[in-house]
Amino acid sequence: MKGDIESGSEDQNEIVTGLLMDHKGRMKRAQEAFDGARLDALIVTHLPSVRYLCGFTGSAGILVINSRESVFFTDGRYTEQSREEVKAARIRIEKGKSVQAGLSNWINGTRGLRRIGIEAAHLSVADRDGFAKFLPRGAKLVKAPSIVEQMRMIKDASEVKLIRNACHLGVKLFDRIRKVVRQGIRESQVAGAIEYEARKLGAEQMAFSTIIAGGSRSALPHGRASWARLPARGFVVCDFGVILAGYCSDMTRTLHLGRPGVEARAAYEAVKEAQQAAINALRPGSTLGEVDRAARKLLYNRRLGKQFTHSTGHGLGLEIHEAPRVAAGQNEILRSGMVITIEPGVYLPGKFGVRIEDTVVVTENGCEILTPCSKEMITI
Amino acid sequence: MKGDIESGSEDQNEIVTGLLMDHKGRMKRAQEAFDGARLDALIVTHLPSVRYLCGFTGSAGILVINSRESVFFTDGRYTEQSREEVKAARIRIEKGKSVQAGLSNWINGTRGLRRIGIEAAHLSVADRDGFAKFLPRGAKLVKAPSIVEQMRMIKDASEVKLIRNACHLGVKLFDRIRKVVRQGIRESQVAGAIEYEARKLGAEQMAFSTIIAGGSRSALPHGRASWARLPARGFVVCDFGVILAGYCSDMTRTLHLGRPGVEARAAYEAVKEAQQAAINALRPGSTLGEVDRAARKLLYNRRLGKQFTHSTGHGLGLEIHEAPRVAAGQNEILRSGMVITIEPGVYLPGKFGVRIEDTVVVTENGCEILTPCSKEMITI
Repeated sequence: MKGDIESGSEDQNEIVTGLLMDHKGRMKRAQEAFDGARLDALIVTHLPSVRYLCGFTGSAGILVINSRESVFFTDGRYTEQSREEVKAARIRIEKGKSVQAGLSNWINGTRGLRRIGIEAAHLSVADRDGFAKFLPRGAKLVKAPSIVEQMRMIKDASEVKLIRNACHLGVKLFDRIRKVVRQGIRESQVAGAIEYEARKLGAEQMAFSTIIAGGSRSALPHGRASWARLPARGFVVCDFGVILAGYCSDMTRTLHLGRPGVEARAAYEAVKEAQQAAINALRPGSTLGEVDRAARKLLYNRRLGKQFTHSTGHGLGLEIHEAPRVAAGQNEILRSGMVITIEPGVYLPGKFGVRIEDTVVVTENGCEILTPCSKEMITI
Repeated sequence: MKGDIESGSEDQNEIVTGLLMDHKGRMKRAQEAFDGARLDALIVTHLPSVRYLCGFTGSAGILVINSRESVFFTDGRYTEQSREEVKAARIRIEKGKSVQAGLSNWINGTRGLRRIGIEAAHLSVADRDGFAKFLPRGAKLVKAPSIVEQMRMIKDASEVKLIRNACHLGVKLFDRIRKVVRQGIRESQVAGAIEYEARKLGAEQMAFSTIIAGGSRSALPHGRASWARLPARGFVVCDFGVILAGYCSDMTRTLHLGRPGVEARAAYEAVKEAQQAAINALRPGSTLGEVDRAARKLLYNRRLGKQFTHSTGHGLGLEIHEAPRVAAGQNEILRSGMVITIEPGVYLPGKFGVRIEDTVVVTENGCEILTPCSKEMITI
């Protein structure tokens, strides 16, 4: 099986442990941002944000930042790993105690903490109440603005490189799909084949549950690969992504088994053009709502607007879904360095669905498509 | 590839859509339980608990229960799916509006709601504050006791059947591991091989990131399959599980490449005996802490107590980690129908690690091992 390995970055471990990432700069910018929000400290509990700021990739850790320092709390299981990974923060492990206990000690031993920010979208009510219990007199927890999410929205050059790597790996999986898709094969087997390929190419894991949805199941926008067999004739929506060195890829192509009818062909062309229209609308200074509108307008003109039942796209990076949203009414301004998906689709319940998706990075002049792969209709 | 398919339940879809599950009975028991907690209603936001109570398997939905009715709120994407899946609850979809908007309308249109329970461990501070905004005068959100988690802790016969199916599928993957594990293969390739096999056997997905950790990496309790190659000599910890019809499996076996030394052999035997000691301690009426102690005591006697750095096990079912915990000091009483893992391990940093894990269901007289598979040391 060794001969099967075709690629895989030699310095993957270096990337994973974050040697290429500017954690110090990020930490500094976070401190500057929460100064503006009148916070004396920020408790970062959302693990992708913890990773973004200090490089820790494990599953239990809390980062706290004030204007003078950054401290990372974890437990004994992560002693070795945190020493290897964590940058730009002091590591504190209280032997035999919980992560929260360490945080409590720090908060109670640090002067001048009055307004302590929490990430309201990523902290459970139970954990918030747990923190509240050990606050010293005069200190309170306040909902912080989405400081780290805002930073993570604009990818730096190292991040774009890693996302590009992940996306290029993702594109290779489509070749595999083309080889295995045929009448009678189960959706889950197609998914299994590309997931295996992803592992062979070095992916850490899939970025989300692979969607392979054939025939009338293609009309389900969330049609995860099932035990169903692909039909002799009809669309097959293939939506898949990998995680490589921590960063996600995401793309969708829709194949057709057998000869497509007039309606299917028209729907496919409409989605393809809508996707291109949204890509053409990408330039710094426009709003994300305008990008959504470009795709939606084209589909409305083809009388398929009502069949486009979801938003045009989403940001991705360390998470498969992160800010910004590419959706109707979004006033967020496109900026160079944003990485987003462009994925219009149409769904005719009981009949068929079509979706075409690329991951792109917004550049000064437009965008770079990170998932380069033909969008012409493929019939098998 | 069609010929590769060896198994896979023919009535899998029936099971997935919940025809075999007693949703009505569960809903009734939940209502009885929250009466006792002085709640007028309970908002269930944790999706595995939503699924447990009403059968919905999608990714956006909220269930609310009061003494008279159960209502399930979702959005337009899940119209068809919720009609197929949801039992024992009325479905409400507010066209073009959020799930929260539907919940708001119901709360404001229902009399006598004063104390509305939330699942504090599974609701973000932001979402809680969102709910609080639309409460009518006189109503308030209160932290509910863990009603559904408590119910889910004791599996009924249908659930045990599904977990057994998942576990038996999981066991088959170990045969595949034995075939592919050898010096020089990458950990991620071993993982890829069993994940592919899992798909072919009908698994929906893996229950967690597959752990294949060879050589000194076996000393990392959380050593997810990496790009590292397996060494000529040393342990390989293999910890893996699948999801089948919604339910998880979990097992670990540790192989040895090459000839094990005296220390390795002694450690393996100690872990194997500790695991058996914990299994022998399983009987209704004991505490979960006693089960943990049985494993821990044996390892202490072998001077490996300090190397056993985690708890003995955890509950599993719709989630890979759920109540109860099998850990030191847990006073929770073992009851027939609990499904837990028994997984002691020892870790010698820089040298090696060994873990052996089964999933078991507690019975009236002891337990049934759901992952039957030899625990004798295998050298390759």
